[in-house]
Amino acid sequence: MAKELKDLTKRSVNYSQWYNELVVKADLAEQADVRGCMVIKPYGYAIWEKMQHILDNMFKETGVQNAYFPLLIPKSFLSKEAEHVEGFAKECAVVTHYRLKTNETHDGVVVDPAAKLEEELIIRPTSETIIWNTYKNWIKSYRDLPILCNQWCNVMRWEMRTRLFLRTSEFLWQEGHTAHATREEAEERTKQMIKIYAKFAEEYMAVPVIQGVKSETERFAGALDTYTIEAMMQDGKALQSGTSHFLGQNFGKAFDVQFLNKENKPEYAWATSWGVSTRLMGALIMTHSDDNGLVLPPALAPIQVVIIPIGKGDEQMNMLNEKAYSIVENLKKLGISVKYDNADNKRPGFKFADYELKGVPVRLVLGARDLEQGLVEIMRRDTLEKESVSIDGIEEYIKNLLDDIQKNIFKKALDFRNSHIYECDNYEEFKERVKDGGFFLCHWDGTEETEAKIKEETQATIRCVPFMFEQTPGVDMVSGKPSKCRVLIARAY
Amino acid sequence: MAKELKDLTKRSVNYSQWYNELVVKADLAEQADVRGCMVIKPYGYAIWEKMQHILDNMFKETGVQNAYFPLLIPKSFLSKEAEHVEGFAKECAVVTHYRLKTNETHDGVVVDPAAKLEEELIIRPTSETIIWNTYKNWIKSYRDLPILCNQWCNVMRWEMRTRLFLRTSEFLWQEGHTAHATREEAEERTKQMIKIYAKFAEEYMAVPVIQGVKSETERFAGALDTYTIEAMMQDGKALQSGTSHFLGQNFGKAFDVQFLNKENKPEYAWATSWGVSTRLMGALIMTHSDDNGLVLPPALAPIQVVIIPIGKGDEQMNMLNEKAYSIVENLKKLGISVKYDNADNKRPGFKFADYELKGVPVRLVLGARDLEQGLVEIMRRDTLEKESVSIDGIEEYIKNLLDDIQKNIFKKALDFRNSHIYECDNYEEFKERVKDGGFFLCHWDGTEETEAKIKEETQATIRCVPFMFEQTPGVDMVSGKPSKCRVLIARAY
Repeated sequence: MAKELKDLTKRSVNYSQWYNELVVKADLAEQADVRGCMVIKPYGYAIWEKMQHILDNMFKETGVQNAYFPLLIPKSFLSKEAEHVEGFAKECAVVTHYRLKTNETHDGVVVDPAAKLEEELIIRPTSETIIWNTYKNWIKSYRDLPILCNQWCNVMRWEMRTRLFLRTSEFLWQEGHTAHATREEAEERTKQMIKIYAKFAEEYMAVPVIQGVKSETERFAGALDTYTIEAMMQDGKALQSGTSHFLGQNFGKAFDVQFLNKENKPEYAWATSWGVSTRLMGALIMTHSDDNGLVLPPALAPIQVVIIPIGKGDEQMNMLNEKAYSIVENLKKLGISVKYDNADNKRPGFKFADYELKGVPVRLVLGARDLEQGLVEIMRRDTLEKESVSIDGIEEYIKNLLDDIQKNIFKKALDFRNSHIYECDNYEEFKERVKDGGFFLCHWDGTEETEAKIKEETQATIRCVPFMFEQTPGVDMVSGKPSKCRVLIARAY
Repeated sequence: MAKELKDLTKRSVNYSQWYNELVVKADLAEQADVRGCMVIKPYGYAIWEKMQHILDNMFKETGVQNAYFPLLIPKSFLSKEAEHVEGFAKECAVVTHYRLKTNETHDGVVVDPAAKLEEELIIRPTSETIIWNTYKNWIKSYRDLPILCNQWCNVMRWEMRTRLFLRTSEFLWQEGHTAHATREEAEERTKQMIKIYAKFAEEYMAVPVIQGVKSETERFAGALDTYTIEAMMQDGKALQSGTSHFLGQNFGKAFDVQFLNKENKPEYAWATSWGVSTRLMGALIMTHSDDNGLVLPPALAPIQVVIIPIGKGDEQMNMLNEKAYSIVENLKKLGISVKYDNADNKRPGFKFADYELKGVPVRLVLGARDLEQGLVEIMRRDTLEKESVSIDGIEEYIKNLLDDIQKNIFKKALDFRNSHIYECDNYEEFKERVKDGGFFLCHWDGTEETEAKIKEETQATIRCVPFMFEQTPGVDMVSGKPSKCRVLIARAY
């Protein structure tokens, strides 16, 4: 067994440590020598690229176009939207100078005090301000609307405690920013995008999510409504995996973006913004993986099938290579990404453990003796089940198996999630049970006080008012006051 | 004629102004309200995305993988490679603080002096330092080599005089960084990448380039050799369009990246880096476009074909729409991107001018009367020639026409370039002629003094020692000293 794998902490021993180790051992990412920042390694980046590619197509199908806006935001822009500055301006990287100079001892560089900026610039924590400052010049008439822009970029929020993919000072994301002529259209777009995120999470990541709307406290700074998708990790904690914000006319007013409507009257433009980030990598890893390493959904796996030969001597190896190349070629024709690993400097056992660690969905072992009988050993990563199957039609078999794995890991995650959702009407019981994780559907009186009390006493937060459950009025489990509906409460990442 | 087009300055009047106006009027990019930064608008970004997609595949075919490294670089990293810090550390954005706070009058934010960083961070001007600091942990043995990483990202260099795409403080690019076990392999990779850039420029951008090696003065800071591709713009000036650097062991030594070679002896790793940026957009625009607007090569045009109907009344329009949709569908099947513009709030004349301005390679006009005769009007953007052709087999006709346009604009640019390359052995003659632009092949004695004199007296620089011309020794036109070969001299962007 490979050393890396043997050392992987078990989930049952320490879930958090298991995650931290797995990200590094599976070559996904590592801590950079810059506080709170990460290096995304090629294997991790290949998964992120697949996510980007699929999401990008989904966005474009709804008319969204990509663009690029500046990294740096003048400090004064942040102050223009009152709530937004409270939420974002505080912990951020500030550029104050534009030049270094050689130091007096000529062995290093120092900031040149003569090169101080008149106005400090902020590295974007999110781009509403710089984008709406730009939209001001693009929008004159209702005919210029809607504007549907998205950008893939890096952003920076100065985080004190960081974890790879889940919370880093710099991260990669996409941020969509749309401008509309009517409130209805903007609200429709906000909902459309959260549905796209949910579809992506469930169909490609195989991660079941609960869609809902955030409480006022948990809303995006500057939004009238924030929609969210919440996923459940294997420790029962929630991970907010994507958000879509209805921003009303807040940014339109803050940046004076007015247009002439069909009645030729000036009106402020309506806004939405929506984003998902490299945090999705964390959700993907924590939902499916096990004590042997990553489990990747075939739809996002950089390598879907690995083929490993077991043979001795040139004659056997030539025979195995020939057979393997023909399978590889046929799989590629079916659009399946496949790696044939006949490197002779690693033992098969090492390779097995390594590809398990990396979460390759299907492993084929080509043995010389099996092959004589027209058989090949196939293993599926999700269940670790091995089978001996006929080599005739193996390509079609693999194609179906990949589909089956995609469905199976979704179902497994869904069953787990559903069996850890509880209705709860008793606060004492809630306080006890929430320690073990899970999603709790509880009545809430809608006040900030109750929300704060729950958070303080249990570290759990109101994740959202979920859309998927039938709702009836009731009684708040904390205050005893009337409640309109149940909200989803959980401890969260 | 559309107002935007009517206002476009002619190239013959002011080439520089023509370019500046065209970038904005064709909706490619605009100046941001942040000093020296640009907003890349959706139409411009769509071209950049096509470039990225093609280049990315070309890189991957050679074994390169994408990854992501931090935006911010600790100041001390820059000092580790002596030449590199001279070249890059000086004009850059410096992050000194990580927090803002509300000001005393509660109407804005100020930098929180308590949140001063112990060590300042630099926004990457290029990533050799942070990447080699990372490679240190990845490279232990020759078995870990080569490492072939690339990243697509934003970088920042504080420029005093900026022009959209050509020179901006923030720009987008890719930077490849490879590590090798031998000098030979690293040198081979350096050359391989400049050849890929040349192939991309010529086959996709239809921009002919001259490959060569830079003089010592013009080398990348920290490189032993810098290879370049140089393109000629319509004003005869050179535009450096891509570079590939052989970095020797400079960064291996600076960041102590040692590996055990096959003989089990420690050795410093060998490095290359190579990049192209959004500057390519400038090269693309300035090579092909004309007084009517953009001319885009079909291989990079976001819209390859536009179809415009001319008809009156519902009955005619229904007939035209029906015909158009069938052509659109057939073109899409051939992998051709097509837009059918039957918007009724713009006159056909406005549409014609607008799509010319945007450089759409082929325009189809569907007229009701033509259609009765089975004919359609087709215009090619490169020559502005119109033809009436049979609607039967129009899709195949368009496919061939697109190929022909791609070849034709390359040939046009190549003929122009070749007719503006001059051998010159007389410095007085050179000084006079270089004012009108063009590439000059001149003997050079190889000294910095001569290079500096030419630059000072003529604003022309040694672009490279070109590979494509047969070389014989001669006499330096300035100093009269012996010269090993002719170099390419030109005024440049």
